[in-house]
Amino acid sequence: MNPTEIIRKKRNGNPLSSDEMKFMIDGYVRGAIPEYQVASLLMAIFFRGMNTEETAEFTRLMLHSGDVIDLSGIAGVKVDKHSTGGVGDKISIPLAPIVAACGVPVPMISGRGLGHTGGTLDKLESIPGFRTDLTVEEYKKVIGEIGLVMIGQTNEIAPADKKMYALRDVTATVECIPLIAGSIMSKKLAEGIDALVLDVKTGRGAFMQTYEQSVELAQALVGIGTSFGKETVGFITDMNEPLGYAVGNWNEVVESAECLRGKDIADIMTLTYTLGGVMVWLGKKAGSIEEGIAMCKKAVASGKAYDKFLELVQRQGGDISYIEHPEKYSQTKHSIDITARHSGFITSIDSLEVGFTGIMLGAGRMKVDDTIDPSAGIMFHRKTGDTVHAGDTIAVISTNKKEVLEASSRRLLDAIHIGDSTPAVRPLIVSIVDKTGVRDYGK
Amino acid sequence: MNPTEIIRKKRNGNPLSSDEMKFMIDGYVRGAIPEYQVASLLMAIFFRGMNTEETAEFTRLMLHSGDVIDLSGIAGVKVDKHSTGGVGDKISIPLAPIVAACGVPVPMISGRGLGHTGGTLDKLESIPGFRTDLTVEEYKKVIGEIGLVMIGQTNEIAPADKKMYALRDVTATVECIPLIAGSIMSKKLAEGIDALVLDVKTGRGAFMQTYEQSVELAQALVGIGTSFGKETVGFITDMNEPLGYAVGNWNEVVESAECLRGKDIADIMTLTYTLGGVMVWLGKKAGSIEEGIAMCKKAVASGKAYDKFLELVQRQGGDISYIEHPEKYSQTKHSIDITARHSGFITSIDSLEVGFTGIMLGAGRMKVDDTIDPSAGIMFHRKTGDTVHAGDTIAVISTNKKEVLEASSRRLLDAIHIGDSTPAVRPLIVSIVDKTGVRDYGK
Repeated sequence: MNPTEIIRKKRNGNPLSSDEMKFMIDGYVRGAIPEYQVASLLMAIFFRGMNTEETAEFTRLMLHSGDVIDLSGIAGVKVDKHSTGGVGDKISIPLAPIVAACGVPVPMISGRGLGHTGGTLDKLESIPGFRTDLTVEEYKKVIGEIGLVMIGQTNEIAPADKKMYALRDVTATVECIPLIAGSIMSKKLAEGIDALVLDVKTGRGAFMQTYEQSVELAQALVGIGTSFGKETVGFITDMNEPLGYAVGNWNEVVESAECLRGKDIADIMTLTYTLGGVMVWLGKKAGSIEEGIAMCKKAVASGKAYDKFLELVQRQGGDISYIEHPEKYSQTKHSIDITARHSGFITSIDSLEVGFTGIMLGAGRMKVDDTIDPSAGIMFHRKTGDTVHAGDTIAVISTNKKEVLEASSRRLLDAIHIGDSTPAVRPLIVSIVDKTGVRDYGK
Repeated sequence: MNPTEIIRKKRNGNPLSSDEMKFMIDGYVRGAIPEYQVASLLMAIFFRGMNTEETAEFTRLMLHSGDVIDLSGIAGVKVDKHSTGGVGDKISIPLAPIVAACGVPVPMISGRGLGHTGGTLDKLESIPGFRTDLTVEEYKKVIGEIGLVMIGQTNEIAPADKKMYALRDVTATVECIPLIAGSIMSKKLAEGIDALVLDVKTGRGAFMQTYEQSVELAQALVGIGTSFGKETVGFITDMNEPLGYAVGNWNEVVESAECLRGKDIADIMTLTYTLGGVMVWLGKKAGSIEEGIAMCKKAVASGKAYDKFLELVQRQGGDISYIEHPEKYSQTKHSIDITARHSGFITSIDSLEVGFTGIMLGAGRMKVDDTIDPSAGIMFHRKTGDTVHAGDTIAVISTNKKEVLEASSRRLLDAIHIGDSTPAVRPLIVSIVDKTGVRDYGK
């Protein structure tokens, strides 16, 4: 086979065969196909797309470039959740213990934050002592013992994806739905799951800013999951405003723990219970999504979900005294109140700008090797729809970097819009996507 | 500047600024921008194109990556011709001496054949002793002394184009009109010319198989020439059938010499006189194209053009005794007659297939490092429109490779179509393209 002819075939809009994809990707991983030919092919894929079969084959090649963890020895239907990334999106932290408390094993491999979005891994690592770098053996042991494990990607998982993602990042070929879908699913399918719930974000703070793109991505993800014989259900959820009140790493852990102890923060818990209900249903512990939601609520109310979280933290080396007494945690050197310039209603809070403010404060990273300050972040006191009076504190920003205080305060203030009338209510969970199609949620 | 952002900008369909193009191309030539980013940008250009300003800037960057030969010390308006390549296209060999004989200096830097098309350089090098590798100093000396010089590309000319062409070749980004136009013009503008005539081939044996693509390429080439202040006139000419009767290297030189001695082979001389007339007019030795054509005809009839050719061969080290007595030239070991399977009219001769047959015989190359057999080739005895009887010799193929005789004979025979009625006459020169637009030629 001739790599140039394969590139030309895709460039001309023709689908590639399994053998052609294998020739290119295996050759790339082995170093036999040079990066410039892969870069050229990726850009051709950006323009021409990949059909369902190509996307599944691409995923399969990425998946089998590394180890696929075998959890068949562990009883139960293993279910995980993946979010495409948002601002204040700590949902995995309350969600996984709730679902595990309902008896559904949750094997979760998470990523780090990049750009304006946070990452579950960074949040968990803000807990003193918490280890996310378990070996595959430890991972299997923890999920087997407590029905829950949360780690980071190992080098054994989908190495082709790692190599190709780095190339896509520098060749402007990241924003391509079949490539994004293949990259996500190759890592999720390596976890050893039986079913998967997807939270595809849409809006300002999401990677997919339009609803149409978000649906397209959700459909690509569900299509891949289905072709691998895994029940996959996707949700399109709003990411125009940060989720909850906390943005940062440690402060999102604290907010998650409060939710697990029963604090009802509307957007966090609506999303957590909905995703959780579907996970419990997919995990065959409930006969319907509604029953699953009721079981999740009960797991919180009974304290079982919070106990499961403490068990997880302890089992992975974390110091639970910080979860129980968050006031022990070291505070940032600087914090500043962001106050309302005038009275009115908060009409919107631009989550993309909030995410970038978080990076300025030290809570996120622009480059993969940037270091994160776990205590830096933003605590909102008000959210969209709330009334404010001039001078009221809308948020508090915390950082150890004195030099960014002024610019980050200004940026955050500019991201909060105050108007004269209450804004229209935007649905948090917009639609549900499964193998049968897309439909509005809750209608 | 960030290369990824520049790629993304082009990918999204926005034109690049001069600074952005300079950053990428200069960086690439210096080795500061990796090949995978250039490959990705080239594929984005393939899909998004380049506007007139970008194409001119791209050409300027390629041109100034190397030396631009200064011929201002040589009197007269220097005019060259460039052909996009065809089968049997030996036009440069009679054309350049004819135009030079009319008093217009012709500084010509030609290329080698690649794929199914031949190259002037390979043809000239079939003349025993002929040197095409003159230095820039020798090049200037010869054009100054005899008003004519024909050499190959030197390493000093447009090195960025050389490097980028090699990358395009392996990344399926060759077939992109602004990139093709920039590549051609960067080399032509380096020659030291004042004006240029372009022969853009169209049809089966051309790189641009459709008329629309040929016009688009001609317009891109004329646009670049004009933006550099060089009078540029393009012709769209038919390449569905080989030009003349000879296909090969030495046999095309022989046919060219015969034409210079007055043999009137219709397609060769029609095209030669038309292009020559325009060159003489652009070179300000004639007041109109028609006057230029008449001067060219006179230069052949008087023997001056043939003498100019002999002078060129001698001046560049070639042995003119072979031009005067072509029977001295060593013959191929094998030759075979291709005879008509049945009686009728030749309705078409597929020039693409003829070109590939030539490669099989040893007359061309598939890869740049393939070697060429100068004596191998095809001599047609009949052309499209001619009557044939079953068993008549239509062509003779010559090769030193016995093993290809059977397959090449079959391929050539299949390329010659015989029907019951005379085919419609196809115009050889379809249209003319200049800065004022495109129009039918001769109407």
